[in-house]
Formats: sequence, C-alpha cells, structure tokens
Amino acid sequence: MSLKFITKNSIIPMQKYCYLNGKIVPEDSAHISISDLGILRGYGVFDFLRTYNGKPFYLREHLDRLENSAKLVGLKVPISKQGIDRIINKLLKKNKLNEATVKIIVTGGCSADGLVCDLKQQTIIILVKEIHDCPAELYKKGIKLITFEHQRNNSAAKTIDYITMLKLQNQKQKQKAFEILYINKGVVLEGATSNFFIFKGNRLITSKNNILAGITRKIIIKLADKNFKVEVRDIKINEIKNADEAFITSTTREVLPVVKINNRKIGNGKVGKNTKLLMELFKKMSLGN
Amino acid sequence: MSLKFITKNSIIPMQKYCYLNGKIVPEDSAHISISDLGILRGYGVFDFLRTYNGKPFYLREHLDRLENSAKLVGLKVPISKQGIDRIINKLLKKNKLNEATVKIIVTGGCSADGLVCDLKQQTIIILVKEIHDCPAELYKKGIKLITFEHQRNNSAAKTIDYITMLKLQNQKQKQKAFEILYINKGVVLEGATSNFFIFKGNRLITSKNNILAGITRKIIIKLADKNFKVEVRDIKINEIKNADEAFITSTTREVLPVVKINNRKIGNGKVGKNTKLLMELFKKMSLGN
Repeated sequence: MSLKFITKNSIIPMQKYCYLNGKIVPEDSAHISISDLGILRGYGVFDFLRTYNGKPFYLREHLDRLENSAKLVGLKVPISKQGIDRIINKLLKKNKLNEATVKIIVTGGCSADGLVCDLKQQTIIILVKEIHDCPAELYKKGIKLITFEHQRNNSAAKTIDYITMLKLQNQKQKQKAFEILYINKGVVLEGATSNFFIFKGNRLITSKNNILAGITRKIIIKLADKNFKVEVRDIKINEIKNADEAFITSTTREVLPVVKINNRKIGNGKVGKNTKLLMELFKKMSLGN
Repeated sequence: MSLKFITKNSIIPMQKYCYLNGKIVPEDSAHISISDLGILRGYGVFDFLRTYNGKPFYLREHLDRLENSAKLVGLKVPISKQGIDRIINKLLKKNKLNEATVKIIVTGGCSADGLVCDLKQQTIIILVKEIHDCPAELYKKGIKLITFEHQRNNSAAKTIDYITMLKLQNQKQKQKAFEILYINKGVVLEGATSNFFIFKGNRLITSKNNILAGITRKIIIKLADKNFKVEVRDIKINEIKNADEAFITSTTREVLPVVKINNRKIGNGKVGKNTKLLMELFKKMSLGN
C-alpha cells in the first residue's frame, strides 16, 4: 500500500512521481507534446517488470529486451542500463513503494512532419507504480481465455501497439474471459499480455515463433526442465483440445492457470497438479530473489 | 505561406493553434498526459485531408472514414461532424492559412491501469497546418518505391500504427526511394502512406483487399472510368513486372507517377501518358472544387 496523507476530512493519495526526458516530475503533470511520434504514429516500444522484496526482478533481462525491441523498430534507448537502474531506485524511494511495477517507454519523440524520427528527440518515460496483485481466487479456480485470429506485427519486439487487445475488451468482458489468446492460421501464439503453455501428460509445451519472448516464460522453461519434458515449438490449435492443463505467464500474473478456452474445458476444468507445482516453484524462486 | 512577424533582427514564425479536448490552444503548449492510451498502447485512429481554395476537400468522406476507423477498433469520435467542420474553419482563420492539411486524431485517452478504455476520457486533437506540396520534379520524373512484406493489422481502419513505416525510413533513404509498397504473400497491397495503381495497356488496376480505402483512390477510380477499363482486385506481384505504368495516390501527393520499383523500371522508366491524363483530370477536378 502506498502512504497517504490523512487530513481532517479526507484521505489524499500521496503524489506519485515518474521520470520523463531527464526529469523526475509528478505523474499528474507529466505530459508530452502532441507532436510526439508515439501519438502521431504509435511509434514506441516499452518493457514492464516488477520488484520482489523491493528489488527489480530480472532487470538486466528486461533492459536487454527493451534494447532489442528498440533496435527491431529503428529506435535506441536513450539512457544507459545503469542510468535506468538508478532512476528506478530513485523512484521507488521517492514514491515510498516497496513492491512495485516498473514501465519504461521509449517513443520516437517530437517530429516536425510526423514522418521522420530524429533519434536525438526520442521520448523516454519511466513509471514506477504500486503493484496490484491478481485476485487469489483466480489462482485457485483458474481463468478463461478467448481466442482471436491475430499475429502482432514486429512480434519479437514489445511495441506499444495494443490496438487489437483494446478493441476486444468488450467482447472479453461479455464472455467473462480474463485474457485473449492470439491464434494465427491454426497455430497458437501468445496471450495479448502473456505467454501460453499447455501440459500433455508430463510434457510441457509452449509456443516458439512469432511471439514475444517473455521473461517469466524463460524462467518457467528453466524451472520446468527438472520435472518435465519441455517442448518449445509451434502449438497447433487442435492440441489445445487434448491438453490436460494450461496456463499463462506474465510479469504480474506469474503462473496463472487456465481452465477454459472459449467454451471448452481444459482437462477436467480444474487447476492441474503440474501447473500447481510450477506456481509453487516460481513463487519460491521469485521471493528468494 | 504562413504569415510571419518580422522584427528588427529576425523572422519569428507566427504562433500556430490546434484543437485539443475542447480547447483551441497554441500548438507548442498542446500536451497530453503520459497516461493516455495513445502513448501507453498506441490506441488511436486518425484521418488526414487537405483544402483546395481554402475549403476542406471531401470532408464528409474523411469524417465518415474516421468514424468507421474508430468503430473498427472500439473507439468513438467524441465530436459531431458539424462540430469538427466548425473547428477546422476556426483553425484555418486563426492560423491565417489558405491552403492547409487537416489531421484529426482520436485516442483512447487517459486510463488509470493502461488496460481499459473509458470512452468518456477519449482524446481528440485537430491539427491544421500549412501545406507542403511535393516537389514538382517528382511529378515530372516519377518516383521509386521499395517493397516490404507486411500487412497492416486492422487494415480497413486508419490507425496510428506506423511502426513498420518508421522502422524502414533509413532503408528507404539509402535506396533513394520515395515510398514503401507493402506486399503480403505475393499480393500487392498499398503504400505505407498511399494507394497503389498500375496500368496494363488501357486497363487501370488497383488493389482491393486488406488496404485502407483512400479518398483520392476513390476519386481516381471514378475519374478513370470514362477513359479506361478499371479493375479493382488483388494485384499479383508478378503483374508489376509487366505493368506499363504505375502511380500512387494520396491526399497531399494526389496522383504521383512511379517509374521504378526496387531495381526494376516500370514500362520505359518514364512517366506514362495514361498517368499524365489522370494527374490532369484530378488537378482540374480538385481546383474546380
């Protein structure tokens, strides 16, 4: 919980700070020009991580991925990794947060004609916010996914393009689903904000191509290696139907069991024992960080 | 040309104004929150038009398309068409412009969690700027295109996602090309900022599917109908090789002849006579507006 100032009549949330183009500023007053290529052309990449015990988790991997995302679309992270590390720690202190999420966004910055990007003008934003854990019930009961035919462009990069996810939010809500699973031409890719895994017996299978290489995904592949046969390869849509268990991974959701995809139950419709083991292994590992 | 204030020692460009969320404000001070879904999630659509003789050209069609783009991605233009018309005219006067380009951007607006869009919070920006015509030489000599394997997501909508175009800007410059032509699985789609046409003899052919339906494209299809056999259908990549002429269309470039694609000449490598006729017909029609 973030600290709050308590006055006579009300509780005023504490002012939060973020980093924007060289300065630490109150979030409420952090604004960028409408000539920014982030707005004019959706031209930006980002990365997203969290802390455990107050320490950024797998920071190096996230910053490497940010660097790679930027490179893949012709941008360049304008601050060194050490510099970003220092800013994150400053913001954790200034915002009086222990556990937090960290988002680092790099956009093409201001452009006079909206067509050409000058790398010297790039925008960088660092947001350090209070973490909101997923409700515990979701981990006990599992979640529902709905599928959608889609493959992200520049899929190896974590770009800011989430138009497809946002256009589906009403559909997701109506169908009481927690996440959207992207499928392309019969192959299962990734969740809109997560990676996807299935168990068939003791085989753990996760998608290989045309996805974002999640950091939690990478950790799970490693953790699972001692207990299961791990297959990193294309997953055919038909394989979902015969899967015994399924789950998604992401920075904030960690390992979140999936018990339904569209209107079909996965296995017996309950959280599977293999998934539970990975949930525990991840929890232990992350907290021991 | 925009008016300028001339002081003793320098020419100071006149302050320009734009419309942002209910207010006409100086462009330099038009900023949006970093919590805007346009920045966080690239969640936005826009439209772009120009004036002829000081009057917005095909405004109704552009506003209809904006409405449709918004609908296709789950947004809603927050101002009526009459309202937008009034704002454009105000900005034309306030910015003392005769011929201008007009850009209208709608984004998902501020979102506390960066995941859910509240339509009441949407951002709308209207920019009215001095027009910069394409150099006359390009119309005389024709331009070069380079091809790239890509299909825009939500291609019927004019979304703000131009990541692929921007990542290719260095490649375009190195190869001395003017525009990128998107190809998907052997089918020619559209330019990064234009529509694409070829002539084979007296047949005018333009792409049909998975493209943005350009307004200039629509006008050209109509204008060409009296002189040529017009085919609106998929264009196979091989057809380019045998094309006699080619051109692109767009709001600011109107009809711009293409004489080279990658390293291959189109026809004899000179601007074709059919293309010239369409250039003239469009010019006449637009100025007579």
